Amino acid sequence: MQRYFSEEKINNQLVLNEDDIYHIKTVMRMKDNDEIIVVYKKIAYLCCLENVKENIKINIKKELEKVNYNTPIVNLIIPILKEQKMDLILQKATELGISSITPIITNRSIIKLKPSDYDKKMTRWKKIVKEASEQSHRIDIPDILDIKEIKDLDKIDGNKYVCSTREKSKNIKLVMKNVEICDRINVVIGPEGGLTEKEEEMLNKQGFLSITLGNRILRVETVPLFILSVINYEFME
Amino acid sequence: MQRYFSEEKINNQLVLNEDDIYHIKTVMRMKDNDEIIVVYKKIAYLCCLENVKENIKINIKKELEKVNYNTPIVNLIIPILKEQKMDLILQKATELGISSITPIITNRSIIKLKPSDYDKKMTRWKKIVKEASEQSHRIDIPDILDIKEIKDLDKIDGNKYVCSTREKSKNIKLVMKNVEICDRINVVIGPEGGLTEKEEEMLNKQGFLSITLGNRILRVETVPLFILSVINYEFME
Repeated sequence: MQRYFSEEKINNQLVLNEDDIYHIKTVMRMKDNDEIIVVYKKIAYLCCLENVKENIKINIKKELEKVNYNTPIVNLIIPILKEQKMDLILQKATELGISSITPIITNRSIIKLKPSDYDKKMTRWKKIVKEASEQSHRIDIPDILDIKEIKDLDKIDGNKYVCSTREKSKNIKLVMKNVEICDRINVVIGPEGGLTEKEEEMLNKQGFLSITLGNRILRVETVPLFILSVINYEFME
Repeated sequence: MQRYFSEEKINNQLVLNEDDIYHIKTVMRMKDNDEIIVVYKKIAYLCCLENVKENIKINIKKELEKVNYNTPIVNLIIPILKEQKMDLILQKATELGISSITPIITNRSIIKLKPSDYDKKMTRWKKIVKEASEQSHRIDIPDILDIKEIKDLDKIDGNKYVCSTREKSKNIKLVMKNVEICDRINVVIGPEGGLTEKEEEMLNKQGFLSITLGNRILRVETVPLFILSVINYEFME
């Protein structure tokens, strides 16, 4: 069943944004009495459509069962990449249960974004994770946090790791043995060409532990999927 | 350094195909004495270019160190998907160390390929895994095996699994505990909409064990990446 996220509840009705209403009417061509699932404040509701053609109403029929995924909170810290790679990461990381994404500026990033373009990018990224959340039946939408520089990552709480091509012995498997389900995990991933030695040192000083993902050569956009797959796997019951 | 695969060695020279020579000359604009890595029969050689502009020669300078990845052999059995998804799976599965891919015909596959189109598709898929092998510095290229029907999978050797949305308790983590590094793992992944109950039953009868990857809703193209990440992780030393 089609799923949407709502940010407003009025009595027994949920309100959707214009894009979603367009999707219901024009893309899905739904009719009165058709059912959809709408998630509001991390609760999924079975809803029934009324008056679709004119002033659509989304009536709550009942609250649906909650699913608990039992994985730690993961904050992915990634350089701004080319659109196609960035989109892939946002989609797949959402599917695999990411909690938040922090875009960062790094020396070797190919994409040099002007601060005046930040808002436009943010809007795009938020739209992608919202849609991916709907498709993967999540009851929450990952946060896209403000774009930061590496030097500004020192205030982050929780377990802190940086994926390194220099580190050879401390691998993700060893590190995962000490991760608890209640932990908040922050992982920095470098751009194509990697973080500079200076950037990695700066992160180490801020408490980010350099780890290796093994000796395969993975593309930047594969790394988050690898890490999130492994975290899901480790906490599978 | 740029990497290519060769299928022919004459004395101290390696031979590349036309596409690769075009890449060297026109895309990379290499010159005489430039170095490349060429893999021939699972051995990587450092090579030096001679006479690039006319009749290019690829001279072997020395044999390079071998990398051993220490993971079981994995044969991914996947339905033929839309081009973009298929390409993504082939690329990422190659990066993550897949040994072979067996395309299958399933009831709910959206793509209905005529047998007369098989050759064209095969050529395309083989090109993609070759390029992905070069990019991820592999010393071998995954095999693309013949397109099969589910009823023809009974002759496959090794550990056999089918990713199921029906199975709730036997998860991949439990199953991985019994997988040895010398094993050959075959995993069937269903199309969008899943395998039919009958197809899954037929696979079970052929010795494929139904397993779940947990309770997240993953898209078809994410499933192989999840499985391969987990296998790499489990055998990490």
